[in-house]
Amino acid sequence: MASDHEYLSLRISADELTRWIDQMFTAIGVPQADGQIVAHVLVEADLCGKHTHGVSRLPLYVERIERGLMMAEAAVEYETSGTAVIQRMNGGNGLGPVVAWKATEHVIAEAKRYGMAAVAVHHSNHCGAMSVYCSYAAAHGMILLALTNSPPGIAPVGGREAFLGTNPIAWGFPRGKESPPLVIDLATSVVARGNIIEAARRHEPIPLGWALDQKGNPTTDAQMALAGAVLPMAGIKGYALALSVEILSGVLSGAGVGPGVKNPYTDFSGPSNVGHFFLAIDPAAIATEGVFEDHLLAMEADLREVPPAVGGPVVIPGDRSEATRDDYLQRGIPLDPSLVEQLNGVAERLGVGHVPVWEDLAHSPHELSPS
Amino acid sequence: MASDHEYLSLRISADELTRWIDQMFTAIGVPQADGQIVAHVLVEADLCGKHTHGVSRLPLYVERIERGLMMAEAAVEYETSGTAVIQRMNGGNGLGPVVAWKATEHVIAEAKRYGMAAVAVHHSNHCGAMSVYCSYAAAHGMILLALTNSPPGIAPVGGREAFLGTNPIAWGFPRGKESPPLVIDLATSVVARGNIIEAARRHEPIPLGWALDQKGNPTTDAQMALAGAVLPMAGIKGYALALSVEILSGVLSGAGVGPGVKNPYTDFSGPSNVGHFFLAIDPAAIATEGVFEDHLLAMEADLREVPPAVGGPVVIPGDRSEATRDDYLQRGIPLDPSLVEQLNGVAERLGVGHVPVWEDLAHSPHELSPS
Repeated sequence: MASDHEYLSLRISADELTRWIDQMFTAIGVPQADGQIVAHVLVEADLCGKHTHGVSRLPLYVERIERGLMMAEAAVEYETSGTAVIQRMNGGNGLGPVVAWKATEHVIAEAKRYGMAAVAVHHSNHCGAMSVYCSYAAAHGMILLALTNSPPGIAPVGGREAFLGTNPIAWGFPRGKESPPLVIDLATSVVARGNIIEAARRHEPIPLGWALDQKGNPTTDAQMALAGAVLPMAGIKGYALALSVEILSGVLSGAGVGPGVKNPYTDFSGPSNVGHFFLAIDPAAIATEGVFEDHLLAMEADLREVPPAVGGPVVIPGDRSEATRDDYLQRGIPLDPSLVEQLNGVAERLGVGHVPVWEDLAHSPHELSPS
Repeated sequence: MASDHEYLSLRISADELTRWIDQMFTAIGVPQADGQIVAHVLVEADLCGKHTHGVSRLPLYVERIERGLMMAEAAVEYETSGTAVIQRMNGGNGLGPVVAWKATEHVIAEAKRYGMAAVAVHHSNHCGAMSVYCSYAAAHGMILLALTNSPPGIAPVGGREAFLGTNPIAWGFPRGKESPPLVIDLATSVVARGNIIEAARRHEPIPLGWALDQKGNPTTDAQMALAGAVLPMAGIKGYALALSVEILSGVLSGAGVGPGVKNPYTDFSGPSNVGHFFLAIDPAAIATEGVFEDHLLAMEADLREVPPAVGGPVVIPGDRSEATRDDYLQRGIPLDPSLVEQLNGVAERLGVGHVPVWEDLAHSPHELSPS
């Protein structure tokens, strides 16, 4: 029986997963238009292989709404008396993807008028993969910078407890109508916490330099790392970048900062108060339309011509995500059986049908690991 | 004799160094106001211990002007028909610090009107330490993002030849009238090329992970690394960030990109065509005046309370630069004797007096190493 196979994978089409997520959020009182946004944001992450930011987050979102810690209807509000070039937005403690999507649409529209626009958001929640907003904006011809803070994840240089989040930096750049946008999206931690959780589950060591134990000593023990703190990427450089993300997303917007951002998985004492920062730039505001995109494609072609090193050829950020997306659109998105079980449990509680998956064999167990 | 001492250091006061640099540029036809900007930018870098971006660059700047590869008078020009929120600037192949300073003053003024403003600059040159512009803008209450591309310095992931520059990312954040600005400034290379040059000079090995040899293999041989390429920080993450800097500074502005940026030390075939990107945000546009600064100081105080790890306590980016600045303002800026000799040679050619240094003993040879 395939279900006994260690590497059993269940697959689902992107369209069917989108519809199912939509039904789930409708069932807990989320307006249909908002549920569609959340479904799109989660499915796009899964499609790019970022399963830690995909439908695996749905149980968390549902639980926070059911507990009254997150609003089913996000009433976002602009609070600034100044110009529309930069605004502060109150996310109204809505679903993170809905708040972030509205902020993205806002900066796209204002950047079309002014050439550039930004919004700093407070009282939001976990909003999924920042790359999704970057792809969307860039597909509309806009350069987008998307930042968010997150609950304490990394230790400051010289400290042994997590304070700053794993604060990602994401940029989207348009490459014209013929090519998908160029998107970069990176956590400022040396590694996603998911990789340490996975190593602990497999009783495997982690590389030195990933994390500290509770006493602040470098460790290769995944369990001790989980009790300690993840390190920033590139030492003080990554720490400095994580700090800049915290300042723009948290301090500037007036959202939670450091431990002021509540961990949605473990802290049920109130709203997370996550902060975001979105900045859109219209390249057509300062270059003849299409010139930016053409020059970007030309640079990329030149980069691919650089002679290969050991382990080459040259990669362009997004190469792997795009290949994964094409593959999953054809073969379906793989879902871990234990996740499907969890999702079905939530569905039963809400009176929604099971996730419409089919059985498949994964190429390797790593295909199911968090990215 | 002190001059025979291996660790002899020569020192100079910041004010005297500023005046001397000013005289040098006046001697080659640079307008006095512009010479004062260059002097300020170089001396500020030396004051923070960034000697690779200080007066050590003067001989290069002078040579490029003398050869007609850089203009003594920078006629910068705004070329955009759009709004003043985002502009493209032609740097007129002027002295990098002058062009960058004018761009910074421009975005500060426009951000005061609109809440936020940016300028993408082409046909500029090496402009020194980006942290200087960030400090200046933040001292005027502005958040500043300062980016520049540079001649090929780092290999793309999977490639064995340098293509992107060591493309720094710098942010300045105001901390109110009582505190110096919070400034971060980091090259997206794993290490400054100066450290490899220094290791080669001392016949010492370099750590694995810093560089590739000409064949694209990781190397610990400093000489082979100099013939090969430096690696980006944090692997593909640093590469992605270097790429975003190249796109904003080079592609968006229409400046040189990748090998299109000429190395000012080795390529005398024409202007460098360096590109910059400056973005200013006025925190007072979306928060009550002073609130941003207060919250930033509060976060910093909380960060310093994080229990220390081995090697602690917690550092805040800029701690070391600020301590160095205070020290050098009191004791004078240390200058390497070989640099002073080189500077005096240029001074004699231009009919300017020698650099007014005094003799001192460095605490250690490392005090003179590139940062």
